[in-house]
Amino acid sequence: MAKKLVEAITSMEEDFAQWYTDVVKKAELMDYSSVKGCMIFKPDGYALWENIQSELDKRFKETGVRNVYMPMFIPESLLQLEKDHVEGFAPEVAWVTKGGLNDLQEKLCVRPTSETLFCDYYKNAVESYRDLPQVLNQWCSVVRWEKETRPFLRSREFLWQEGHTAHATAQEAEERTQQMLNVYADFCEDYLAMPVIRGKKTEKEKFAGAEATYTIEALMHDGKALQSGTSHNFGDGFAKAFGIQYTDKENKLQYVHQTSWGMTTRLIGAVIMVHGDDSGLVLPPKLAPTQVMIIPVMQKKEGVLEKAAWLKDVLSNYRVKVDDSDKSPGWKFSECEMRGIPVRVEIGPKDIEAGCAVIVRRDTREKIQVSLDEINEKVGQVLENMQREMLERAREHRDAHTSVADTYEEFKEAVANKPGFIKAMWCEDEACEIKIKEETTATARCMPFAQEQLSKQCVCCSRPAKKMVYWGKAY
Amino acid sequence: MAKKLVEAITSMEEDFAQWYTDVVKKAELMDYSSVKGCMIFKPDGYALWENIQSELDKRFKETGVRNVYMPMFIPESLLQLEKDHVEGFAPEVAWVTKGGLNDLQEKLCVRPTSETLFCDYYKNAVESYRDLPQVLNQWCSVVRWEKETRPFLRSREFLWQEGHTAHATAQEAEERTQQMLNVYADFCEDYLAMPVIRGKKTEKEKFAGAEATYTIEALMHDGKALQSGTSHNFGDGFAKAFGIQYTDKENKLQYVHQTSWGMTTRLIGAVIMVHGDDSGLVLPPKLAPTQVMIIPVMQKKEGVLEKAAWLKDVLSNYRVKVDDSDKSPGWKFSECEMRGIPVRVEIGPKDIEAGCAVIVRRDTREKIQVSLDEINEKVGQVLENMQREMLERAREHRDAHTSVADTYEEFKEAVANKPGFIKAMWCEDEACEIKIKEETTATARCMPFAQEQLSKQCVCCSRPAKKMVYWGKAY
Repeated sequence: MAKKLVEAITSMEEDFAQWYTDVVKKAELMDYSSVKGCMIFKPDGYALWENIQSELDKRFKETGVRNVYMPMFIPESLLQLEKDHVEGFAPEVAWVTKGGLNDLQEKLCVRPTSETLFCDYYKNAVESYRDLPQVLNQWCSVVRWEKETRPFLRSREFLWQEGHTAHATAQEAEERTQQMLNVYADFCEDYLAMPVIRGKKTEKEKFAGAEATYTIEALMHDGKALQSGTSHNFGDGFAKAFGIQYTDKENKLQYVHQTSWGMTTRLIGAVIMVHGDDSGLVLPPKLAPTQVMIIPVMQKKEGVLEKAAWLKDVLSNYRVKVDDSDKSPGWKFSECEMRGIPVRVEIGPKDIEAGCAVIVRRDTREKIQVSLDEINEKVGQVLENMQREMLERAREHRDAHTSVADTYEEFKEAVANKPGFIKAMWCEDEACEIKIKEETTATARCMPFAQEQLSKQCVCCSRPAKKMVYWGKAY
Repeated sequence: MAKKLVEAITSMEEDFAQWYTDVVKKAELMDYSSVKGCMIFKPDGYALWENIQSELDKRFKETGVRNVYMPMFIPESLLQLEKDHVEGFAPEVAWVTKGGLNDLQEKLCVRPTSETLFCDYYKNAVESYRDLPQVLNQWCSVVRWEKETRPFLRSREFLWQEGHTAHATAQEAEERTQQMLNVYADFCEDYLAMPVIRGKKTEKEKFAGAEATYTIEALMHDGKALQSGTSHNFGDGFAKAFGIQYTDKENKLQYVHQTSWGMTTRLIGAVIMVHGDDSGLVLPPKLAPTQVMIIPVMQKKEGVLEKAAWLKDVLSNYRVKVDDSDKSPGWKFSECEMRGIPVRVEIGPKDIEAGCAVIVRRDTREKIQVSLDEINEKVGQVLENMQREMLERAREHRDAHTSVADTYEEFKEAVANKPGFIKAMWCEDEACEIKIKEETTATARCMPFAQEQLSKQCVCCSRPAKKMVYWGKAY
């Protein structure tokens, strides 16, 4: 009944895309702007990004990362220095051609990513082995002129971090590339309760200009994959294109080896699509800006609001609020659900008389009556259990939606009827990868670090297989 | 002797502008980029902004501010909706005219400020009095196509925060405008140890589209003023231009009243120019990313590095580092000075034998020998004293560089020979303000809240005076 008070959202089963759009709008995470393809991060949406940013930033700094800020513009000539890179990005950038009242002599693109700017900087900043490694990162927005956009998942401007490092040796660069992928994966699992597959992109899917791209891939509730973070090893390709050299201990000139790695606001979309349900958002407790909402019942009765305020103090080691607005309790319950607040605490005159309150957990909707003496401890337990079980449930869902295909028939059958990841062997020939994509729309998500030998033949051409690949339809 | 090891910087007395440039480069705060007029915030420079941002953000949130993120682009038609505003900004914006491979139908400017985007948002987000107030802020970069640029003080792209609020009444908007100015002023004084004059801008100097602009003005070491933060009351001007209305409790349509307020990375320039000296940067302890640097002396002797590491643990409630690089102690001392680290601790074999270390305070260069038993407490005292005395000293400097002019002759004499603020009476006629600016290059910095009646006549035209004004040459 209370649910009806809040405007209904489309059910996931009926139309997952519409469910997603309803949730982002009704949980007030974002709004459309008058700039086509660009979105507005509303307070509740931006608060998620603030938490992601602060937690990731802490984890980066623990590995020695320092933050910087580069200009948002890239001169056309600079973008063109690395051949593969410019081919990958030039078709989708926004160009500034006028400054003030004058036409610019050289047009500037709004950064789609900042490899070229960091390279231009390293060229001057790095002289000797003493200047290495350079382990820098920036938090900023980038622009890619996408044709089709979806809130958080794909927009013309999005927020992200981009790490850029330069090292003396190829080995050190490779270690940093993998280290940051592991930081990303651990963050997704520990903090977002979102399990990921760690692996390497195929040659076809790797980043423009990279020698190798590593990725973490998550599975959404509808069985589609979402690339959730990538880490690239550039080898010395950019260094050669930009002339980034250092003198080593033997006083010889050497090229540096570089990496870059990024995570974006699409993680917010991932959280929605991994954990959400038909009542709205479900936020993992560690991420939730508000972890506990206290809802007074019959709040006009003497002592109820006072007790709610007292309870807020008791629970002050969590991120806690009281909803004492003049809406009905039922409406407030639904709003809490829509917004994904992990725990709501209901407290009314009868509870107060009995020295209790009712705790309701968002994901399972489990209700427990708790003595006020124990409520601080109980809420802590519920939040902890919820965080852990959300990860377990997402992992179970992913595993239940991962199938194995030995033959191309099985593969096509799986793409058509079993939404989720498909594990299958591959010969490493790009022709097979392209054929699979054209005929089934599934793409190679990654060659997981944890390889399995499912069979000896490529699922597509039956020639000897070299790699086990996770395939899937992707956002 | 040690000083010579670090490349010399120009002395302030000799050439203040060159001193400033030397310090920002040699303290490694910034670097020039290949994009004309745009700068690179290097790790030590960006760390200052991170601290400013985190402290200001905390203070904002204590007053109920929530963060959001708006697009970086503004369609030309949106920028044009408020007449004064577009006139103020259109001549200095960068225009995006191409997206991907196509020309845009409507050109987009890169935001020089986001009033228009927030108004466009409020137009839809505000319906009833229940939706008010809206108290939003964003941290982002903005672009203004300046002709002459200087690191931190004026660049084509800079970082800032911009708060934008909407209120039911004119009074509430006025209160918020002043509240935020006070947040800014308190922040400058408490955290940056930088005294400011709080006041109102003249009609001529107010923000494009504002009814009133409040400002805080600081005095740099060379006697020039720096506008350090502004807070604008828009009245209902933007609301009328954009159609932002709400239904009040009597169900009548009303226009909202709006404010905006901003602080930028020029604060870093202010800190350098208020506190720096001929040895480089001097950072107020609260702002300093590294508050204490431990420098081992004769670090190859047994036990010295171990004792330095032990000392780092002892001092772990401060932001502390050990410089155990293979440079000489003298070099390290000079680097510490250049970078403005508030306290350095020297510890060598003799100190260890005596159970002591030497504390050197950056601003006064006072050296004290301290027993290791007491060092934690002593360092805390030194940091506290330094923070307080830096503010006092800056205030004394400002007061000593503030003169009073009763006549226009005195005024011109002061502008020519007494670098600093000039307090003088004004008739409130813009003609006098323009004349003063043209003839002396001094501008009206603000009409301070703390008004004094210095005389009864305008310093310029001798007609009856209405306001006491702080005048000065400004950055």
